[in-house]
Amino acid sequence: MQLIDALQHRSAVKRMTGEKLDQNVVNTILEAARLAPTSAGLQPFHIVCVSDQTLKQALAPVAFNQPQITECSHLLVFVSWDAMDDARIDQRDAEARTIRKQDASVTTETIQGLKDLFGGFTQEQQYHHSAKQAHIGMGVAIAAAALLGVAATPMEGFDKEGMDQVLHLSKLGLKSVTLLALGVQDVENDWWSKLEKVRMPMDEFVIIKP
Amino acid sequence: MQLIDALQHRSAVKRMTGEKLDQNVVNTILEAARLAPTSAGLQPFHIVCVSDQTLKQALAPVAFNQPQITECSHLLVFVSWDAMDDARIDQRDAEARTIRKQDASVTTETIQGLKDLFGGFTQEQQYHHSAKQAHIGMGVAIAAAALLGVAATPMEGFDKEGMDQVLHLSKLGLKSVTLLALGVQDVENDWWSKLEKVRMPMDEFVIIKP
Repeated sequence: MQLIDALQHRSAVKRMTGEKLDQNVVNTILEAARLAPTSAGLQPFHIVCVSDQTLKQALAPVAFNQPQITECSHLLVFVSWDAMDDARIDQRDAEARTIRKQDASVTTETIQGLKDLFGGFTQEQQYHHSAKQAHIGMGVAIAAAALLGVAATPMEGFDKEGMDQVLHLSKLGLKSVTLLALGVQDVENDWWSKLEKVRMPMDEFVIIKP
Repeated sequence: MQLIDALQHRSAVKRMTGEKLDQNVVNTILEAARLAPTSAGLQPFHIVCVSDQTLKQALAPVAFNQPQITECSHLLVFVSWDAMDDARIDQRDAEARTIRKQDASVTTETIQGLKDLFGGFTQEQQYHHSAKQAHIGMGVAIAAAALLGVAATPMEGFDKEGMDQVLHLSKLGLKSVTLLALGVQDVENDWWSKLEKVRMPMDEFVIIKP
């Protein structure tokens, strides 16, 4: 299967050339993330797409100056709702019902159930829930990038509060979750690419229940 | 792109026929999840693969008797480490160094950094971190299933403690995270499949920073 082959050959490249990717290729990866499923279809996350070099330089210190931040073509910052609040759940419900031409009564019970569920979470737990949905989107985006042969490096090691400040996320009710740097691998200077890929053996990864 | 087309046509099907999938197809989806990247390469999650009908019936009540639990071919239960503890980090490091023929000194600093990082988390925060990695794997598995034309329904609405008990996860140091039911859609009885797919428009999903 092409995807398996592509996943075997991708890696979280540590150095990129700075070369710009075709915008259509980036848009395809964004589209894959947009189409990813989320819990109850709420899509409680967005992607901040950074291609400006000055802004990437401003973000580098909050990501411990890892070279991919400034060497990538596009830095995708996955950001999620800071809370699973009633107003946003109502908004998503209304949007879905408009598309599906449904009366409010069709979803009243489901929506109340979601509000009750998330209402029992602390705000931190609500953020973790929305952040998990963003990670599904990142997984799908990584699959798309692998199939397109685009280097895509997931990066979770950064100062999330610093990232939120530089990108002015709090006024949008959003918090940073994870990064995906898209670009072209600098094969010559990427020491990591010389290391063998390591994954848990299948018979350890999968726990079979007969 | 084939993946975009496949994602547009997949949905979280609500009814399945009970038909068994070819084991090779299931194995390909598991392999995609296994190859998914994780933070620092620690792979702090596993998949419990349930195909036995009696066990699926035992799991149905903890998933609010949603029909996919018993109507699916294989129920993938994504389970993650209950804590990002030093012993497991050391084990993964040792496994990776064995494959890469590296001396311990090569990774000492990185591994200590990870221990310091996760040591500053509460155990609940450690679980959320490992659960997020499982969600990357689920995203990649969903992409694989879409490409294979296999119905794959992510299900987060279940009693996690109940699931942990039925699957005896605590003795393995694991906790349930999310479900992915794989099977064959029962088109006739799946009311949901008649509804239009809803996703946020691209210009709302992506926040462009020039």
